[in-house]
Amino acid sequence: MKWYIAAFLLTVLTSSQGILTTLTQSNGKYKYDYATVPFLAEVFKLIISSVFLWRECKKLPPPKMTTDWKTVRLFPIPSVIYLIHNNVQFATLMYVDTSTYQIMGNLKIVTTGILFRLFLKKKLSNLQWMAIILLAVGTTMSQVKGCGEASCDSLFSAPIQGYMLGILSACLSALAGVYTEFLMKQNNDSLYWQNVQLYTFGAIFNMARLVVDDFRAGYEKGPWWQRLFNGYSITTWMVVLNLGSTGLLVSWLMKYADNIVKVYSTSMAMLLTMVLSVFLFNFKPTLQLFLGIIICMMSLHMYFAPPSMLVGLSPTVRSDPESLVIVSDDHKAES
Amino acid sequence: MKWYIAAFLLTVLTSSQGILTTLTQSNGKYKYDYATVPFLAEVFKLIISSVFLWRECKKLPPPKMTTDWKTVRLFPIPSVIYLIHNNVQFATLMYVDTSTYQIMGNLKIVTTGILFRLFLKKKLSNLQWMAIILLAVGTTMSQVKGCGEASCDSLFSAPIQGYMLGILSACLSALAGVYTEFLMKQNNDSLYWQNVQLYTFGAIFNMARLVVDDFRAGYEKGPWWQRLFNGYSITTWMVVLNLGSTGLLVSWLMKYADNIVKVYSTSMAMLLTMVLSVFLFNFKPTLQLFLGIIICMMSLHMYFAPPSMLVGLSPTVRSDPESLVIVSDDHKAES
Repeated sequence: MKWYIAAFLLTVLTSSQGILTTLTQSNGKYKYDYATVPFLAEVFKLIISSVFLWRECKKLPPPKMTTDWKTVRLFPIPSVIYLIHNNVQFATLMYVDTSTYQIMGNLKIVTTGILFRLFLKKKLSNLQWMAIILLAVGTTMSQVKGCGEASCDSLFSAPIQGYMLGILSACLSALAGVYTEFLMKQNNDSLYWQNVQLYTFGAIFNMARLVVDDFRAGYEKGPWWQRLFNGYSITTWMVVLNLGSTGLLVSWLMKYADNIVKVYSTSMAMLLTMVLSVFLFNFKPTLQLFLGIIICMMSLHMYFAPPSMLVGLSPTVRSDPESLVIVSDDHKAES
Repeated sequence: MKWYIAAFLLTVLTSSQGILTTLTQSNGKYKYDYATVPFLAEVFKLIISSVFLWRECKKLPPPKMTTDWKTVRLFPIPSVIYLIHNNVQFATLMYVDTSTYQIMGNLKIVTTGILFRLFLKKKLSNLQWMAIILLAVGTTMSQVKGCGEASCDSLFSAPIQGYMLGILSACLSALAGVYTEFLMKQNNDSLYWQNVQLYTFGAIFNMARLVVDDFRAGYEKGPWWQRLFNGYSITTWMVVLNLGSTGLLVSWLMKYADNIVKVYSTSMAMLLTMVLSVFLFNFKPTLQLFLGIIICMMSLHMYFAPPSMLVGLSPTVRSDPESLVIVSDDHKAES
């Protein structure tokens, strides 16, 4: 599979995730316990990866599997980071309103670029850095509340702690992504074996969350395994399968592409969801959504197009009163 | 003078123009006839250019001056285009509200790029085209009305004629600029001689406008020369001098730099005015202004930075699962 096909699929699936989740709501509320969805998605990913690993084991050569504790112990770390992230997210929302939180969420595009550069030692060109910042600006722009929309005066009027927590949240989110990429690329182990380890810990941590939720609620609704499928409709199952498939695609991208590809996919998905919402849920399209889409498309082109295409193919005339220099393809190498 | 110094001065003067004009208003009204300001500015520019031309004539070698009718007859054309533009502008405002008109005004950045390419045959790289579009998107974004602001529902709800006229207006504005650049660069004539021709016609056309205004108003307030300085304060005179100096700088840029430099200067001036208004007139700063400034700064860097700096200096790693290609400075020429 080519990485851009995987990236495109991830965009479509992430976008459907938003639409499907909205469809499972009635009057803005879920008829089921939403915390059960990520747990079941982890189980789904674990089953799929196990089946693929089992099939791989029957073939020759057998898949490469590192099983020593030194490697395995690295696999619960993403789950631990996500756990901390969830708690920071919760703390942030005590200080800032949801609009500000959503806007600040776009910071993770930039923090992913920074951690990608620092921890994975990947070099980015000047233009690629600008593309990453533009992507963050474009997604933020599309979310700017339009005229006449309610509850917008509160934007960026939160105490300083709120913003510090928001930045921490963006860093943790980026760290989880960058760490997973490191994990998947550290050796030539079979992707399915790496997935099995990742999702086993994922399932355990999600289950722990359900147990803690039960304990906090004083077992009012009974233990989680008794109400696991309560209120589940076909659409809810589609949400589970969709979330699971998204996770498998992200795993693949982490091993064979990188975090920046993932960030572009999910950002494009957000814009696609907003465009689809205009048609499906009668959302009012805004000028800022339109401008945001233009910026993100240009950012995409700037990041992934070959540099020669961006600056080279057509001869460039630079205006300079002192000396009119004509830079054409032939002279590019020297300049 | 380096072109970027002239461009910087133009930004500062254009921005002060907005601030000064606002300062001459009391309760949102002018105490003087605003139509007299551009006329006096043309006269100011004519005097300054004549003085410089006279000083040039005393030196050796004498300035190059083409005086045949075939060349001189080209100089009233910018004034004619501006006259048509003013009327189209007036017609547009009968269909669209001022917010929509202001937003559509940013189209002239893109039309200037297109006419610059078509009429002056200047080639732009893929990246420079993207920079021009980004500049238009950035300035538009900074003008998007914030939450809770009044009269924003009318945005883009005008009849189709309004938009057609808006596009025509953007094309005429760009045409005037591109035509002036052609005029100034067509031969090696002294800038001051070219200015004298340009501003003589400019003064005549502006005077004609005052006469027509008088006629339309039925000479209620008397002929224009009797009320020329009515209600003028020191600030009004500063507006005149500022507008005149801006015009002289634009002339210089048209001859020694180009229209794109001018477009960047005036766009940056618009953003600078908005930032200054936050401090001077207690305007509420918006997230969209902040985002617009980031985009315009990146556009500026993309357009004017040397391509080697944008894509070259730091080695670039492109993520590709099939083949991890490392593009570094050394390999740039071949790729």
